[in-house]
Amino acid sequence: MAQEYVLSDLQHGKAECRLVTVERTGSAAEQHVLHDLNVTTQLRGDFAAAYTDGDNTHVHATDTQKNTVFALARKHGVSSPEELLLHLAAHWRTQPWVTGTWFGAEQAGWARLGNGHSFVRTGEATRTAWVQTWGEDTYVLAGVRDLVVLKSTGSEFHGFPRDEFTTLPETDDRILATSVTATWRYAGSGQGLAYDDCHERVRTALLDAFAHTHSLALQQTIHAMASAALDAVPEIDQIRISCPNKHHFLVDLSPFAMDNPGEVFVAADRPYGLISATLSRTGAEEPRAWAGIGG
Amino acid sequence: MAQEYVLSDLQHGKAECRLVTVERTGSAAEQHVLHDLNVTTQLRGDFAAAYTDGDNTHVHATDTQKNTVFALARKHGVSSPEELLLHLAAHWRTQPWVTGTWFGAEQAGWARLGNGHSFVRTGEATRTAWVQTWGEDTYVLAGVRDLVVLKSTGSEFHGFPRDEFTTLPETDDRILATSVTATWRYAGSGQGLAYDDCHERVRTALLDAFAHTHSLALQQTIHAMASAALDAVPEIDQIRISCPNKHHFLVDLSPFAMDNPGEVFVAADRPYGLISATLSRTGAEEPRAWAGIGG
Amino acid sequence: MAQEYVLSDLQHGKAECRLVTVERTGSAAEQHVLHDLNVTTQLRGDFAAAYTDGDNTHVHATDTQKNTVFALARKHGVSSPEELLLHLAAHWRTQPWVTGTWFGAEQAGWARLGNGHSFVRTGEATRTAWVQTWGEDTYVLAGVRDLVVLKSTGSEFHGFPRDEFTTLPETDDRILATSVTATWRYAGSGQGLAYDDCHERVRTALLDAFAHTHSLALQQTIHAMASAALDAVPEIDQIRISCPNKHHFLVDLSPFAMDNPGEVFVAADRPYGLISATLSRTGAEEPRAWAGIGG
Amino acid sequence: MAQEYVLSDLQHGKAECRLVTVERTGSAAEQHVLHDLNVTTQLRGDFAAAYTDGDNTHVHATDTQKNTVFALARKHGVSSPEELLLHLAAHWRTQPWVTGTWFGAEQAGWARLGNGHSFVRTGEATRTAWVQTWGEDTYVLAGVRDLVVLKSTGSEFHGFPRDEFTTLPETDDRILATSVTATWRYAGSGQGLAYDDCHERVRTALLDAFAHTHSLALQQTIHAMASAALDAVPEIDQIRISCPNKHHFLVDLSPFAMDNPGEVFVAADRPYGLISATLSRTGAEEPRAWAGIGG
Repeated sequence: MAQEYVLSDLQHGKAECRLVTVERTGSAAEQHVLHDLNVTTQLRGDFAAAYTDGDNTHVHATDTQKNTVFALARKHGVSSPEELLLHLAAHWRTQPWVTGTWFGAEQAGWARLGNGHSFVRTGEATRTAWVQTWGEDTYVLAGVRDLVVLKSTGSEFHGFPRDEFTTLPETDDRILATSVTATWRYAGSGQGLAYDDCHERVRTALLDAFAHTHSLALQQTIHAMASAALDAVPEIDQIRISCPNKHHFLVDLSPFAMDNPGEVFVAADRPYGLISATLSRTGAEEPRAWAGIGG
Repeated sequence: MAQEYVLSDLQHGKAECRLVTVERTGSAAEQHVLHDLNVTTQLRGDFAAAYTDGDNTHVHATDTQKNTVFALARKHGVSSPEELLLHLAAHWRTQPWVTGTWFGAEQAGWARLGNGHSFVRTGEATRTAWVQTWGEDTYVLAGVRDLVVLKSTGSEFHGFPRDEFTTLPETDDRILATSVTATWRYAGSGQGLAYDDCHERVRTALLDAFAHTHSLALQQTIHAMASAALDAVPEIDQIRISCPNKHHFLVDLSPFAMDNPGEVFVAADRPYGLISATLSRTGAEEPRAWAGIGG
Repeated sequence: MAQEYVLSDLQHGKAECRLVTVERTGSAAEQHVLHDLNVTTQLRGDFAAAYTDGDNTHVHATDTQKNTVFALARKHGVSSPEELLLHLAAHWRTQPWVTGTWFGAEQAGWARLGNGHSFVRTGEATRTAWVQTWGEDTYVLAGVRDLVVLKSTGSEFHGFPRDEFTTLPETDDRILATSVTATWRYAGSGQGLAYDDCHERVRTALLDAFAHTHSLALQQTIHAMASAALDAVPEIDQIRISCPNKHHFLVDLSPFAMDNPGEVFVAADRPYGLISATLSRTGAEEPRAWAGIGG
Repeated sequence: MAQEYVLSDLQHGKAECRLVTVERTGSAAEQHVLHDLNVTTQLRGDFAAAYTDGDNTHVHATDTQKNTVFALARKHGVSSPEELLLHLAAHWRTQPWVTGTWFGAEQAGWARLGNGHSFVRTGEATRTAWVQTWGEDTYVLAGVRDLVVLKSTGSEFHGFPRDEFTTLPETDDRILATSVTATWRYAGSGQGLAYDDCHERVRTALLDAFAHTHSLALQQTIHAMASAALDAVPEIDQIRISCPNKHHFLVDLSPFAMDNPGEVFVAADRPYGLISATLSRTGAEEPRAWAGIGG
């Protein structure tokens, strides 16, 4: 009976390959370079027989995909997550039965500890990267998530509609706190760029815009961050930002005969506001580039 | 300078409203009905001025959206997560400046403990539901996630391509374990259905297909589960299934002069295979229905 | 300079060995028995030289401890987590330089799916077990955690002290919800018992007492659960229970001209009450039995 | 029947009060000081009647304890987590029926973003603090957890015993990676110290010792870190360190005709080694100080 149905969106791959590479210069000083990645692979293609008949003739095993991550890391080194993913895409897009590919990576940050081979993990945020191909087209995206920021003043919220279910008071001074998820697409095929440098410039633009925007709405801050990134980094064509509004409520201390002039807050877990938008250069829409990339 | 850019995909709402309702019959026996939901709202519409100018005139506050969740739960009761979300959609789709809506809910399961008002949480899986509107169109989706299943035999994997990076041996008997995420779309506008009953029939079809499919690939098991759901539940038109392959490796005990005839395994965390597909009745494709719904 | 200091509480072992065993009867029906464990080992002993001088002569490698978990699971089978841990203790307590041992296990529950070799994970709670030795003394403890229960009525809280910082109203009807962590110690050396049966009887006693105690305080419910367990299961001598008070607040719907007669609640995440106690048969105190066992 | 049993270890309090304070100087430059804490309280005392009879006459409500956290933060300000907890202890230890107290706090780190009121959360580690009283005695402890460090060389492991279950090869060069949990006790009653400065000096000592110890065992590194902390910070009398050995395995690339001279590793999740010890100045043992403080 299953033959009546339409099978689509076939994908398989290996998720969360925890690849750590050490680039050794061989010098006495041992100034090692560390990359700490979590790599996921997905292939699209002519794999229907595995689903309908258990025929694996076309199924590149996820174990093989995992091996390829480690082997290509050895062959090419890891100069940036984007470049490793491009090597994976170059390998897999030409394999039989493969019509599309999707690769993602998360990178943890590490700082040096006084010598060339000791490190402490910085936990400021996670760097993300994706490479995706559809036939001949290649897209490179990158981003940051869990970048937690807070302003203790310089944030207002008022002028919103008041309906039968509105109870929120207006405010001209509140804490604004969020955890930024930003994802951007590099222009064109996105190849051959200085990805580390681009990433640092986007991150700086986001943080500067957050700090220096007097905010009338988290929406405005999101737009300011996105604009700043497009302004500062011509290599990118689009950016999506998603931000929870991590509410900090002023504690009512009046039952204890205490005032509370913006000093003591309780940070709430749930619910939280959730606000997002995409900003693009004119004509830069590429919906396929974003398939399977949340945010 | 920001004016040069194109602003799109505007959304805002309140995430993870932890709504718990108790339906009280008022009888002496107090046979309460409990619903335990985690509700998220998102509105799409004419909100650009908030982003570009901090003008909140059109911005239905996320706090108001939260209040509406609780108020409509009181007004209509919660007979199923889908019905609550449909009430939210009916309310918000007609509000000024709103052109689209997105509502999601997770429901935890509870079993009775011997009297009418005591419960223990079953942790078998999480039930999910979504209602999404685009202009006049309404879509209802539902699903299950974290449904963890395992077969200790009746699973093989062989006949896959062997390339330069393939090392995986073929096997005709392995443990197959996964955590099923399944999401289905109800046909048409999806309204007026017996959602609890549909959900239970899909769940039963998925588990039966998992148990009774002799598996030559996790792909085949996914297809069997999806087909069984479409066969058993005519109310649904499409189903997407995503399954990690939670690897269980046979431990090599030969260094200790012990055999291991499929008895002692180590369960691996990462990496894991990740395999997915969508199965649809002919002509049932509705890409907009799935916007923002992972899987 | 370090020599001036006193080195104590030396421990090392392998944490979270994810052992899954399949007991195969060999019959055509293949009625397999599944055990899904997470085993942690710790040895205490004469290991100071490894700390002070990097001399590993006495250090049983944590990798060896891991191998022993899998090898003893093969040698003895897994009839219950307690019995596997007792086999581990019997092995390690007699090894050179070992003066004490500590073993812990978590067990996930699985239910059968219609045939003898397919299973679905029940998520109701996690079963726990520990075996600990100090010289000649052996202690066996067991427990349950993440057992989430809720009463929608039959819970009050009033009569507590009111000081300058008290604002909580008294209530004679509230939702009482918690996630029970209970740990009990089997009497004497705790060996040779029917651990599965004991566990089931304690669990039943805990749930029955929770359901049937009209609660004036979560403290009272904890005491009722602990008493019921000691009453029902003579094999145990002591039980510790720790319970968060998972607050469910009645939502104030009066701004919307709605009443709320105990129907619509918001479940809070943090903060939460946290209440605990130990109940013992007279003379049953054994502080060393509980070293390193939280709750 | 419950009267036959011995009730002990009574505790209750409010866990995870998410307190955020903003110290405002009032100047035009608005150089705010931010503290971001997660505070837990526990009281011990004469509370048995609540357990046995539901009599709450002596039960200081956990809600009152929460209010006291926020009120005392307002009254005294938050100069350090230790000082806030000492204020809480001073308040509660003299309340009726209270015989002992336990307070814990976690503090997240924030760095400034270019102006006086914008911040980004550093995720390097979490700072911890505890104050505990038993009758007249007060203890102050502090610590750090989730301090993730890695050495890409300068770590060996050999010379360990080889028994029937040993398969681990010896190595003279490996990656050593861990997530340090360190907890220290301030000498005497631990009061009146410069806690921020002490914390920074311990942290520096731990990281320096990690980086500069050529490690023959993780045990040796732990001892070196603990010794360095006691050497550098005379204000502390004891330190406990617990470290997982986060294994990084060299990937075998020989099936692909590739060598792998310490360049490509896979980071494993589970199992992991787990090693701990306590180092104390002579005569500094204070077991009660550590009750309920893991690590």
